[in-house]
Amino acid sequence: MASFSDIDKLAISTIRLLAVDQVAAANSGHPGAPLGLAPAAHVLWRQMRLNPENPEWIGRDRFVLSNGHACALLYSLLHLTGYDFSIDDLKQFRQLHSKTPGHPEFFLPGVEVTTGPLGQGISNAVGIAVAQANFAATYNKPGHTLSDSFTYVFLGDGCLQEGVSSETSSLAGHLKLGNLIAFWDDNQITIDGNTNVSFTEDVAKRYEAYGWEVLYVENGNEDLAGIQSALEEAKKSKDKPTLIKMTTTIGFGSLQAGTHAVHGAALKPDDVRQLKSKFGFDPAKSFVVPQEVYDFYNQHVIQPGAKANKEWDQVFASYKEKYPELGKELERRFANQLPENWTEKLPVYSPKDSAVATRKLSEIVLESLHSSFPEILAGSADLTSSNLTRWKEAVDFQPPSSGLGDYTGRYIRYGVREHGMGAMMNGIAAFGAHYKAVGGTFLNFVSYASGAVRLAALSGHPVIWIATHDSIGLGEDGPTHQPIETLAHLRAIPNMQVWRPADGNEVSAAYHVALNNKNTPAVLALTRQNLPQLEGSSIEKASKGGYVLQEAKDANITLVATGSEVSLIVDAAKLLASKGVKARIVSLPDFHTFDLQSQDYQLSVFPDGVPIMSVEVLSPSCWAKYAHESFGLDHFGASGKAGDIFKAFQFTPEGVATRAEKTIKFYDGKQVISPLHKPF
Amino acid sequence: MASFSDIDKLAISTIRLLAVDQVAAANSGHPGAPLGLAPAAHVLWRQMRLNPENPEWIGRDRFVLSNGHACALLYSLLHLTGYDFSIDDLKQFRQLHSKTPGHPEFFLPGVEVTTGPLGQGISNAVGIAVAQANFAATYNKPGHTLSDSFTYVFLGDGCLQEGVSSETSSLAGHLKLGNLIAFWDDNQITIDGNTNVSFTEDVAKRYEAYGWEVLYVENGNEDLAGIQSALEEAKKSKDKPTLIKMTTTIGFGSLQAGTHAVHGAALKPDDVRQLKSKFGFDPAKSFVVPQEVYDFYNQHVIQPGAKANKEWDQVFASYKEKYPELGKELERRFANQLPENWTEKLPVYSPKDSAVATRKLSEIVLESLHSSFPEILAGSADLTSSNLTRWKEAVDFQPPSSGLGDYTGRYIRYGVREHGMGAMMNGIAAFGAHYKAVGGTFLNFVSYASGAVRLAALSGHPVIWIATHDSIGLGEDGPTHQPIETLAHLRAIPNMQVWRPADGNEVSAAYHVALNNKNTPAVLALTRQNLPQLEGSSIEKASKGGYVLQEAKDANITLVATGSEVSLIVDAAKLLASKGVKARIVSLPDFHTFDLQSQDYQLSVFPDGVPIMSVEVLSPSCWAKYAHESFGLDHFGASGKAGDIFKAFQFTPEGVATRAEKTIKFYDGKQVISPLHKPF
Repeated sequence: MASFSDIDKLAISTIRLLAVDQVAAANSGHPGAPLGLAPAAHVLWRQMRLNPENPEWIGRDRFVLSNGHACALLYSLLHLTGYDFSIDDLKQFRQLHSKTPGHPEFFLPGVEVTTGPLGQGISNAVGIAVAQANFAATYNKPGHTLSDSFTYVFLGDGCLQEGVSSETSSLAGHLKLGNLIAFWDDNQITIDGNTNVSFTEDVAKRYEAYGWEVLYVENGNEDLAGIQSALEEAKKSKDKPTLIKMTTTIGFGSLQAGTHAVHGAALKPDDVRQLKSKFGFDPAKSFVVPQEVYDFYNQHVIQPGAKANKEWDQVFASYKEKYPELGKELERRFANQLPENWTEKLPVYSPKDSAVATRKLSEIVLESLHSSFPEILAGSADLTSSNLTRWKEAVDFQPPSSGLGDYTGRYIRYGVREHGMGAMMNGIAAFGAHYKAVGGTFLNFVSYASGAVRLAALSGHPVIWIATHDSIGLGEDGPTHQPIETLAHLRAIPNMQVWRPADGNEVSAAYHVALNNKNTPAVLALTRQNLPQLEGSSIEKASKGGYVLQEAKDANITLVATGSEVSLIVDAAKLLASKGVKARIVSLPDFHTFDLQSQDYQLSVFPDGVPIMSVEVLSPSCWAKYAHESFGLDHFGASGKAGDIFKAFQFTPEGVATRAEKTIKFYDGKQVISPLHKPF
Repeated sequence: MASFSDIDKLAISTIRLLAVDQVAAANSGHPGAPLGLAPAAHVLWRQMRLNPENPEWIGRDRFVLSNGHACALLYSLLHLTGYDFSIDDLKQFRQLHSKTPGHPEFFLPGVEVTTGPLGQGISNAVGIAVAQANFAATYNKPGHTLSDSFTYVFLGDGCLQEGVSSETSSLAGHLKLGNLIAFWDDNQITIDGNTNVSFTEDVAKRYEAYGWEVLYVENGNEDLAGIQSALEEAKKSKDKPTLIKMTTTIGFGSLQAGTHAVHGAALKPDDVRQLKSKFGFDPAKSFVVPQEVYDFYNQHVIQPGAKANKEWDQVFASYKEKYPELGKELERRFANQLPENWTEKLPVYSPKDSAVATRKLSEIVLESLHSSFPEILAGSADLTSSNLTRWKEAVDFQPPSSGLGDYTGRYIRYGVREHGMGAMMNGIAAFGAHYKAVGGTFLNFVSYASGAVRLAALSGHPVIWIATHDSIGLGEDGPTHQPIETLAHLRAIPNMQVWRPADGNEVSAAYHVALNNKNTPAVLALTRQNLPQLEGSSIEKASKGGYVLQEAKDANITLVATGSEVSLIVDAAKLLASKGVKARIVSLPDFHTFDLQSQDYQLSVFPDGVPIMSVEVLSPSCWAKYAHESFGLDHFGASGKAGDIFKAFQFTPEGVATRAEKTIKFYDGKQVISPLHKPF
């Protein structure tokens, strides 16, 4: 057990004051939590295994600051432990284009996940811990331990109040993730004041109910030995995640300590000065790091970390000799590369093949690919038999003691926890080793996970959502389950693929692009109902995000659709043809991918001179980017047989053809310019 | 205490078989939960206080079926207890345009809230219980009890796994809502199989940790006396909500009882037949209700309910005499009418008034209105000092024993629980008496509550979201807190007002329309930063959802914006004017309200012949409905000073003017038709 001396106190004061100085320099930010958490941060980080020269080292411990607003604390730690954060970077806290933004962002060295939106970090950490357990169970061999790291979390009352953390904490307990250790900053203050205004539950008891080990540190402000002792005990808890309830004082040392006034605004200058004096620092100086503090972290963290990484390299070298297949697989995964020739395994269809629901086609893809992709961790939020996310031979990711699977398992039973699943998927992706998280729910309930979905896009986690039952086509479950606004919502998120494939080739294309992509998440919106295999579709064409399914010379109209409405416009075009009206047919399975094509290509799909009408049984509000007119739904769905609902809402060949004719008439004699032309 | 006999068993069998017959007739639906829950349903409903002739009676007990997929159970109960549900209605289960849709919908008589999306119903029920407690504390007088009803909930494992239920259950415990009683259908089955695959936490212990009373019924399939006894005990628990853990067998009586096969598909015909035989019914007949069962419910529910309503009417008549002011207020509220002359209290501004953040202007409105509107229950998800949702004299809604407020309080400390807040607001609205729930968070975190927000729109609950920090204008908190896709998302939801007011008059207009509206929720997107009072704005004009702020003869361009970008386009227009370019200025604070205006009016705002360019610092994907070109953000925000970010993204008068000039040039010589013209 480590013992503590004056240098530890000095290091803690340094961390505290670096954080306070950052917030003061910006005159914006959150000094309260860093002041309260610096002791725990120091005790934890002085034993962290990490290598700032190699921040992506798979063997590192992970640290997640779930209360991301306390990032001045994290930036201070990253500076002191040798990451690429200079004092000048700290001085630029919260300034545009700085390396020290207002909340920690994934692209920064040493930042494991983007945090700030409360409840996400702890939930990401559960995902990281899952990935670590899977990685260790899959690759560790006797005498060759490639992974035995811990995931540490700091979280506050806000994170504990958010439902997403309840979902993932319950699952972490079920999964017996002993590699997960969370420090609860029990400072009894949130923005609205004392937690007694809204949060009087017994958190420790709740976490025990989840199956966690709960430990206590009564004086988190000063009792370093107590923090250390809890940490050691937590690390021994091999089959339970641990919550360390650590009572602290928000803004410790400040004149406003213990109040919410110290949470989210810079301390007043005289408060900063008295704080520095109190901690034995020169009140006139800012951003001061005593050399012995640098030396301490160098000796206790940087040097041991470099050494550990070097030892790991040796173990891995020997591993590659002894287990050449696995070694090769790991090298590929570490290099973030895909399996060789994997695209050859993607199913190809012809119009003669039978009609199949796209959710089923997705299952066929997973069935074809899973053995080549050990990095795929699939799962569903308790809709496995509806989402069809589980290949036949899948082993469940479960604690071995459950008898239901083991940690090599690659199928996660998320339970009815969509938001938690989304946040865990982000964590699985963030672990490294090219993990590909694939999670299923109904498209409508991806909305429950909005908070995690947008962070996947912001962070660039290439997770894949299998979002089935993607329209009124789900039928009898009715409007509570029928997405209307969902695609408009998802398509408005930057850096987000939103695939709505129309047949088997397009489903293969969606996987083709989504798996190839290293920094963009994807939602695959899939049908419950069968769809025919289309004449004119191909993986290659659909992989462009949009293409001409059927060309028509001297066309009167371009009809464009996605998913289940593509075969509908094909039928409508036949009806129109019988009346002498010529329609081009465009399938546009993913806006995001289509937007990445050259303008020439895009204009070949949506040329000038032909009015364009889109057809999609969802809100049409995002379609005007490509179409002059849109046939969609501006109201909620209904409960009934799918066919009856389509008919009632006029999503029939006749309903489409009538609107197409009106569109043609409307644009007759007018100059028709493709919406793709833009003045800026 | 009630005693039970054969008639009770017969009633239960009737309920079970009515549910099974509905699902069989539709060949779609969920027979498992109704079979398991029928005994509890019967025991509960035989003592419910309700009046099917007056389903809106404020004194009624509420029943919420949180596991809404079990709706065949609810429809059976509503039929038996005299609501306007005929046997023919039951036969139309899950058919288009029927009164028996696949999940219960709010518009149906006797359905208290729309359920199906898991976790919502129990959370709505917490809101209903809050409203009941507030109503009782506000209006009950000695000898004049106007409200003492209970809110009962059925919920399953799925509801308990969802984070939203964790949020609201924690708050319900904090608030000591003794009027809330939930029956947990502990059948150990979810769609993925046995709950042991993902849900092994100790739920009872968790609810105790929340401060709930937890009771047990070991044999929920048959032990009617046990259910009754738990119910009686729960009703005595005056300062704790109660969870009754009731172990049942899903699909009780079916050949597939106890398995997930019985959850979500019709029973096979021979299974239905053996079930009917087993329960002593003729296997050849369907939808059978023995007359003695009708008689039983008539005697135990319908007649006592009618009597109780009549007695209540007498109490209220006497109340109105003794407390004429309160009586008048209640009559107004029951009639769903607004206070007289309330609009006169809306603040009016002129361009001479100083620049103020719209969040602050919203606070001023609440300050002006709160005393006229006893029905407003405001609150915030732990961002009171940021959302400015609390008037100075507000009393917190708190259990009196907390010393922090009481149940007459009209300000709810929701804690960091956005989704829970949204679901509770829906419940508060559903209680009746014209309750107006107003809840605050950052606009970006309305997304956390997407599941509840769409149900507000689907159900027509006129709740109001105060969504502050509505753009990159929030500055340093950075991209994790800056909404980009959020307005596109919300505007794509049918029946949803999404106000983004530009100044004081527009904020007043937003409240004017939102409070007037009885069936449409509203989100008010408000700035953190100050905005000038505009020349040309007025409550009357802005109440149309969009209007010409500044007209220009022979204009070269129409610039349209919302919120903080309206003053930006005003400045851009000045810059353009200095170059001889004439710009019309349109403010469009709410698409939904604007869309309700006449086409003539709409075309006067967006006339033909002038190209239209929108400016909004969020995703532009929903703008093409009104604008030919859009200047928005197709990427995430950044952490930095708000002014720096606006500049970096070129949201400056120069940046707007440049794009306006390009737009004018692009359309020069082309025929320009207003996008409001539609061929269909």
